[in-house]
Amino acid sequence: MDPVAFAADLIRCPSVTPAEGGALDLLQERLTSLGFQCRRMPFHAPGTDPVDNLYARLGTGQPNFVFAGHTDVVPVGDNGAWTRDPFAGEVADGVLHGRGASDMKGAIAAFTAAVARFLDSHGAPNGSISLLITGDEEGPAVNGTRKMLEALAADGEVFDACITGEPTNPDELGDMVKIGRRGSLNGYLTAFGTQGHTGYPHLADNAAHRMVDLLKALIDLELDAGSDHFQASTLAISTIDIANPATNVIPAEAKAVFNIRFNDLHSSASLEEKLRAVLDEAAGGTAHYALEIVCSGESFLTPPGDLSEMLTEACLEVVGRRPELSTTGGTSDSRFIKDYCPVVDFGLVGKTMHKVDEQVPVADVEGLSRIYGKVLDRYFGVAD
Amino acid sequence: MDPVAFAADLIRCPSVTPAEGGALDLLQERLTSLGFQCRRMPFHAPGTDPVDNLYARLGTGQPNFVFAGHTDVVPVGDNGAWTRDPFAGEVADGVLHGRGASDMKGAIAAFTAAVARFLDSHGAPNGSISLLITGDEEGPAVNGTRKMLEALAADGEVFDACITGEPTNPDELGDMVKIGRRGSLNGYLTAFGTQGHTGYPHLADNAAHRMVDLLKALIDLELDAGSDHFQASTLAISTIDIANPATNVIPAEAKAVFNIRFNDLHSSASLEEKLRAVLDEAAGGTAHYALEIVCSGESFLTPPGDLSEMLTEACLEVVGRRPELSTTGGTSDSRFIKDYCPVVDFGLVGKTMHKVDEQVPVADVEGLSRIYGKVLDRYFGVAD
Repeated sequence: MDPVAFAADLIRCPSVTPAEGGALDLLQERLTSLGFQCRRMPFHAPGTDPVDNLYARLGTGQPNFVFAGHTDVVPVGDNGAWTRDPFAGEVADGVLHGRGASDMKGAIAAFTAAVARFLDSHGAPNGSISLLITGDEEGPAVNGTRKMLEALAADGEVFDACITGEPTNPDELGDMVKIGRRGSLNGYLTAFGTQGHTGYPHLADNAAHRMVDLLKALIDLELDAGSDHFQASTLAISTIDIANPATNVIPAEAKAVFNIRFNDLHSSASLEEKLRAVLDEAAGGTAHYALEIVCSGESFLTPPGDLSEMLTEACLEVVGRRPELSTTGGTSDSRFIKDYCPVVDFGLVGKTMHKVDEQVPVADVEGLSRIYGKVLDRYFGVAD
Repeated sequence: MDPVAFAADLIRCPSVTPAEGGALDLLQERLTSLGFQCRRMPFHAPGTDPVDNLYARLGTGQPNFVFAGHTDVVPVGDNGAWTRDPFAGEVADGVLHGRGASDMKGAIAAFTAAVARFLDSHGAPNGSISLLITGDEEGPAVNGTRKMLEALAADGEVFDACITGEPTNPDELGDMVKIGRRGSLNGYLTAFGTQGHTGYPHLADNAAHRMVDLLKALIDLELDAGSDHFQASTLAISTIDIANPATNVIPAEAKAVFNIRFNDLHSSASLEEKLRAVLDEAAGGTAHYALEIVCSGESFLTPPGDLSEMLTEACLEVVGRRPELSTTGGTSDSRFIKDYCPVVDFGLVGKTMHKVDEQVPVADVEGLSRIYGKVLDRYFGVAD
């Protein structure tokens, strides 16, 4: 199986979240022909679009090695700004073009082709190989990987190791393996005061001044200095809003939103406790402010070990590059998978992901497929 | 002349800014019959409503004693919420009702009646008595007192002392004379940064954080501890706005507005210099922020002296109360007059000004007229 041709076929399926676009059907057809047992897992939570997903398993024994990913892609944005049709899957001058080339139909094709080669060379693995493929990674991520894992675990499925094929390399294939992710939470902060006239500030209680004090306390807070595998946690205010048009009126309420990216020294619960202590003091009491915390993902770490070691060796062998084991960057569905088995992210170069003219070198798709193949060889003990 | 009946007549002229409403015509008619030379002074700046004004002078000699005021009134607001027709000028149970009763048709009637009594008792004054009456005090104040004074000074008019008849008493007639006013300026502050992703704050420069630092420096700034006749200057933030809807985006720009009420230890120019020094340091350089200062009035003081002394004695004599010589509260047209002669504000009780059911006790209008009369007697040396 040519991973580049298969990636191009997948790109031609216009699977912008939440549309299936034929991508899961096409993937299921190839996997079925390789001997996988396929199970479609559509979910539809109230107030969301229905989304289809695919779990495919080759073999019934353990260990069960998983490749995770998504066939859905982000919208093309300004269609006229693209040099080529984003859904044509064109290959020209050694480059594969189209939406999803990097994020992450290229990687899906790469691991599907890697499995095909494994089967050609070694026959059935001593265990199982599974693909956990969602159509809801770029969207709200409500009807995808999280629900699949819950349902599969309830049915007795056990996962032993996972590579999620997200684009992880900043510049060159083999640059970086992600072995964990920071957590992310948003804080929605309201400062309360008493309205009044700017000429008589002693008769009022200025919510804007209180908000400045609260936010100053937050930005002066040193959350940590980093941990063994993580950068220091960071806090960034994204907005402050009062919208008071009257320059002579002291506002009674001020709102702000901040985002915290936190490492493995914290959980959203421990952070909330710390934030409330700081804000209680800065506000002069809990009655003077309100804080709502929404956590979109806890931090996690798959400590360097067998999985990252196998990937490192495979990268060295295929592209002669030792990948950095990193925990930087945003979230992926690995934040759900980490509750079931060790998981790392490794895929293509992410430079053009989510952008106009998304593209990836043909050599990278082929190289990634070889790297995935060498991991399978090592995992199932058939490496040279 | 009955000041209460005349005040009621003025109230019946619906002179909501910028409408003349017949109020200046009526006043001019009465003043002409008392022997005043009247001069209408309409002004019309581009982009504003045309406004009519009246300067009336009795006599040609110096000293020229001035009563200043305005016939325009603020809108009635919710007409249905009024107990009585706001433009009926009704008198009932010893109370004069209607828009402008307190602010300040009652005072205009009081000083007009005081002049009439002076002329009855003493004949022409040894000098002049003038009325400086605008129809643009409650509006933008662009086409009123300021322009009148410029034009009159250009024509050689000289003013020697002035009482502006704004309502100055918090509770009872004779409570308070205003001998100066704080200045007021608005600061329009913009903090600049570099947009980025909240996950990568080291690659961005958060304008919200910079704004918090700038505003914290401003609210921590102690402008002064007050002066002999003034309260401490105050700074109040009225709004902070970023309006960034994306919780994962670090904003490139943040805006805030603050208001400073300042005493005679400062001018708007000295304050701007001080603010820029503080902001330069907090921002880490002038390139990181922009500040626009708009001053609506400098602070001024008419130090306690002849004029306030005469008013104090008149209050003691008429209502048995020694007025506080204060510099509290908002601005009046005295902020323009102070450049031409000593000026103080004294008028009725301000409790209902600008409110529904504006009203003033009949006895207060009569008492105020007697107080004004006793000031005239003292000023022109004919007191008993």
